[in-house]
Amino acid sequence: MPEQSPLDLAEGDPFGPHNLPYGAFTTADEPGRRRLGVRIGDHVLDAGAAAHTLGSPYASLLAQPGLGPLLAAGRTAWRDVRRALTAWVTVPAHRQDIEPLLHPLDSVTLHLPYEVADYVDFYSSEHHATNVGHIFRPDGEPLTPNWKHLPIGYHGRSGTVVVSGTDVIRPAGQRKTPADPAPLFGPSVKLDIEAEVGFVVGTPTELGRPVPLNAFRDHVFGLHLLNDWSARDIQAWEYVPLGPFLGKSFATSVSAWVTPLEALDAARVAPPARDVDVLPYLDDSGDEEPGGLDLRISVAINGQIVSEPPFATMYWTAAQQLTHMTVNGASLRTGDLYGSGTVSGPEVHQRGSLLELTWNGRDPLELPYGKRTFLEDGDEVTMTAWAPGPDGVRVGLGEVTGRIVPAPATS
Amino acid sequence: MPEQSPLDLAEGDPFGPHNLPYGAFTTADEPGRRRLGVRIGDHVLDAGAAAHTLGSPYASLLAQPGLGPLLAAGRTAWRDVRRALTAWVTVPAHRQDIEPLLHPLDSVTLHLPYEVADYVDFYSSEHHATNVGHIFRPDGEPLTPNWKHLPIGYHGRSGTVVVSGTDVIRPAGQRKTPADPAPLFGPSVKLDIEAEVGFVVGTPTELGRPVPLNAFRDHVFGLHLLNDWSARDIQAWEYVPLGPFLGKSFATSVSAWVTPLEALDAARVAPPARDVDVLPYLDDSGDEEPGGLDLRISVAINGQIVSEPPFATMYWTAAQQLTHMTVNGASLRTGDLYGSGTVSGPEVHQRGSLLELTWNGRDPLELPYGKRTFLEDGDEVTMTAWAPGPDGVRVGLGEVTGRIVPAPATS
Repeated sequence: MPEQSPLDLAEGDPFGPHNLPYGAFTTADEPGRRRLGVRIGDHVLDAGAAAHTLGSPYASLLAQPGLGPLLAAGRTAWRDVRRALTAWVTVPAHRQDIEPLLHPLDSVTLHLPYEVADYVDFYSSEHHATNVGHIFRPDGEPLTPNWKHLPIGYHGRSGTVVVSGTDVIRPAGQRKTPADPAPLFGPSVKLDIEAEVGFVVGTPTELGRPVPLNAFRDHVFGLHLLNDWSARDIQAWEYVPLGPFLGKSFATSVSAWVTPLEALDAARVAPPARDVDVLPYLDDSGDEEPGGLDLRISVAINGQIVSEPPFATMYWTAAQQLTHMTVNGASLRTGDLYGSGTVSGPEVHQRGSLLELTWNGRDPLELPYGKRTFLEDGDEVTMTAWAPGPDGVRVGLGEVTGRIVPAPATS
Repeated sequence: MPEQSPLDLAEGDPFGPHNLPYGAFTTADEPGRRRLGVRIGDHVLDAGAAAHTLGSPYASLLAQPGLGPLLAAGRTAWRDVRRALTAWVTVPAHRQDIEPLLHPLDSVTLHLPYEVADYVDFYSSEHHATNVGHIFRPDGEPLTPNWKHLPIGYHGRSGTVVVSGTDVIRPAGQRKTPADPAPLFGPSVKLDIEAEVGFVVGTPTELGRPVPLNAFRDHVFGLHLLNDWSARDIQAWEYVPLGPFLGKSFATSVSAWVTPLEALDAARVAPPARDVDVLPYLDDSGDEEPGGLDLRISVAINGQIVSEPPFATMYWTAAQQLTHMTVNGASLRTGDLYGSGTVSGPEVHQRGSLLELTWNGRDPLELPYGKRTFLEDGDEVTMTAWAPGPDGVRVGLGEVTGRIVPAPATS
């Protein structure tokens, strides 16, 4: 019996040729040489080597240590490279050239695939914002007056965006509840997750040139799963009046794989009905392509699924976020990353943070290995997701995972 | 009569050999070749060429298109390079080698001297925060409860940090006053300045390794003057609950010259007395070197001085800001930049923003060319500063200037 080819995927493999996400990898025998890889099934194709072997006008873009140059090359290059890759992994005549360039996924190390330029985090799930409002401002309106007029966002720390699999060190900091006479210092006791989707900017812009809604796909290359780790106790004490800072800046994890938007065409859905009119620059009601994405996220703690947030319920779309982010003339750089904000659906089991799932610790989760309000040292959080693809096949999104390790002893 | 040497500076020149700030420049005949320069009087020394000519173990660090590699090289290199530069511009035997490597300041173009990694902005002037509190929350306590326990800060957009002299395009965006039934869209009508000092990180750190107060000078190389342009109307509508975003992200201007901390040893002063005890990690009361800096800033609009903010009045020091920024384990990268927050002194003419100087537009400034509440198109804002140097000589800080140009017509 002939050995099975890594290119003979099981029917419906969510990482089939309809997907082809990008990442950066090294192998055990050449740990210093980062390469651009493309996932196919449970293998990684060395994209630069493939382009060299099969000949491609984009060979130099692909023979790079990461995704940056391809991101910067623009939409035409993104489309052409994807077409070439699809041919390389599907046309039988290429099989003997491609097979030697495939590395088993479990044999490689994956890295952050590009240098993150600016990192912005939005707050665009109505269910999440409403839950948070109820928890922190029980006597007021849950949504602030601006919430349905603009996608609220803020800048985060790009230098602490880490790739899936990186341990997350429990942050220390100040916290103070109303019952404390003075702030306390120590490791966070309310370490939380935020299940998000992160969008990756490829094509840059100049200062003073806002990006209209219909240019979204000229600038955004693809997306990650993203876990915006949050220390709720640090955040609660620090965030008035200038927003979250140390409660977030210790780590933000992204999946090693960037899924190109082109793989998600079948997942496009209309966003929820908006009940407040928006200003013209944010009005997507006449757009040809619906702005929502039907991504089904799962969040597991130590292997146990605790939430299944539906991205299709997001009030503001990624295109609206990009347009808003640039409407003041702010420029984009290749490698800018922006998070959707925590994804929470209308149901209890669709909430994308422990803050919401446990109602700020009031209702612990009962898990097979014990109760959880917030994360304990050693807990491993893994987010996965899939989206509808062509012909009923699923598109898998690369997982984002991270394990909590104790805060270092302070001197 | 022999021609005077550019190295024969007038007595007390604030850019004498006691100063030696760094920048990046190009010349008209080689506009594509950026070089590291050091300012001496009104000339720029080509630092790489000098190191090559005179021989230096740091020649390769200096023969670079910018300051980044020197920033990354660490404190010993900073000290050694400064000693060498001082000798090159003062020892008569070097004069005939050095003079040909000096370019008149007005003949070169200055550039952003390094790539900004993360940009953080603090809020550390008690006078400024108190003024802002009175203006926006007239019925409440002006300072939020956390203000004297931690230096409040937030992340800004590093991709829109621009070098002095770059035009600033008036941002457009949403604004809404309580009198407006719905938000309006258009160019900001409350475009403002914030007079700040920006600190530049050289030596990076790893995740999970907070920087203690006494390691400040191992990590921070020097400082810029910084103008954190702010659209008050956009900011007021967007900033609850996650902080400033588009009201700031359109542009932040920095001086082309980075003044090394070593040039400011004589400007060290004790910070103001703190009336609230701080947690041990922020307690600088036992530090050998006082954490304040006696920088005298001037802000001019169209050549008319409108404010003289005294940096020595800042409640939180740059060392405390760095320690706080990393206490949660967040790592530093070479090129991280953090702003002090608007510098305002106790007197009316020491306020570092038009928001404060005009009390949110209530009290227009009467200037020779007309009244000003906020900035008009065509206005040019220039910040300069000096500090006490050795032997009574002043240390000049490079200016930061920018002119307001109209928002582009929107489609």
